[in-house]
Amino acid sequence: MQLTRAADYGVRVMVALAGYPDGARVSLPELTRATGAPESFLSKVLQALSRSALISSRRGQGGGFEISQLGRGASIRTVIEAIDGPIVLNVCLADGKACKRAAWCPAHPVWADAQQAMLAVLESARIQELAEQGEVNQF
Amino acid sequence: MQLTRAADYGVRVMVALAGYPDGARVSLPELTRATGAPESFLSKVLQALSRSALISSRRGQGGGFEISQLGRGASIRTVIEAIDGPIVLNVCLADGKACKRAAWCPAHPVWADAQQAMLAVLESARIQELAEQGEVNQF
Repeated sequence: MQLTRAADYGVRVMVALAGYPDGARVSLPELTRATGAPESFLSKVLQALSRSALISSRRGQGGGFEISQLGRGASIRTVIEAIDGPIVLNVCLADGKACKRAAWCPAHPVWADAQQAMLAVLESARIQELAEQGEVNQF
Repeated sequence: MQLTRAADYGVRVMVALAGYPDGARVSLPELTRATGAPESFLSKVLQALSRSALISSRRGQGGGFEISQLGRGASIRTVIEAIDGPIVLNVCLADGKACKRAAWCPAHPVWADAQQAMLAVLESARIQELAEQGEVNQF
């Protein structure tokens, strides 16, 4: 019941990118420094974020990674799910995987409530706000 | 970020055992039926619950598994942690693993809040109450 390292680095890199002004392109080595993630691992995370249009990338001279408006407004939940897929606290809560026990199992609503409580927090935290908070914290 | 199968079966078996009166000993095949867990897997789960004194076991004729008073009053959180160890939503929240970024990282308090929200639900659900709810649900 732990966040994957990929999702953790995904949130770190999104917050780092949101600290740059619109239009700024940030290099992979710079993002590696900012996140503490290994470069090859971070590349895969950036690919996933790019597929979800939370960031864009351009190759070559003057290239790099840039956060999109969608990315600035994204919640932590959105970023995690872009990398790891839907957050499902217990397998019985997965879409389309109806548990035969669900109708009477007294633990089922507890899993659902625990997941909802966690998701509410992860949804309320927005990348752009976190980046601004991070800047305040460092000064 | 998903509950292990072992912990899921742990909660199922605790709720099943709490449905029996004090002093009743329940056999492994009976618990296998009640939980839908493979017998060899369930054995390991029962060992972990026994080590934490949430249940007791007796071998031989008339033997089996019995929930303890501690077990009846235990929360879902306690059962999960008896099997999987401490619930830690992100590695930066683990005891004794101070994250160098914690002082300024704006995501750190979000992980802490999300974990706390989830734990509050898992702590408020008690095994004995779930067993009673399960009995109501089945009739």
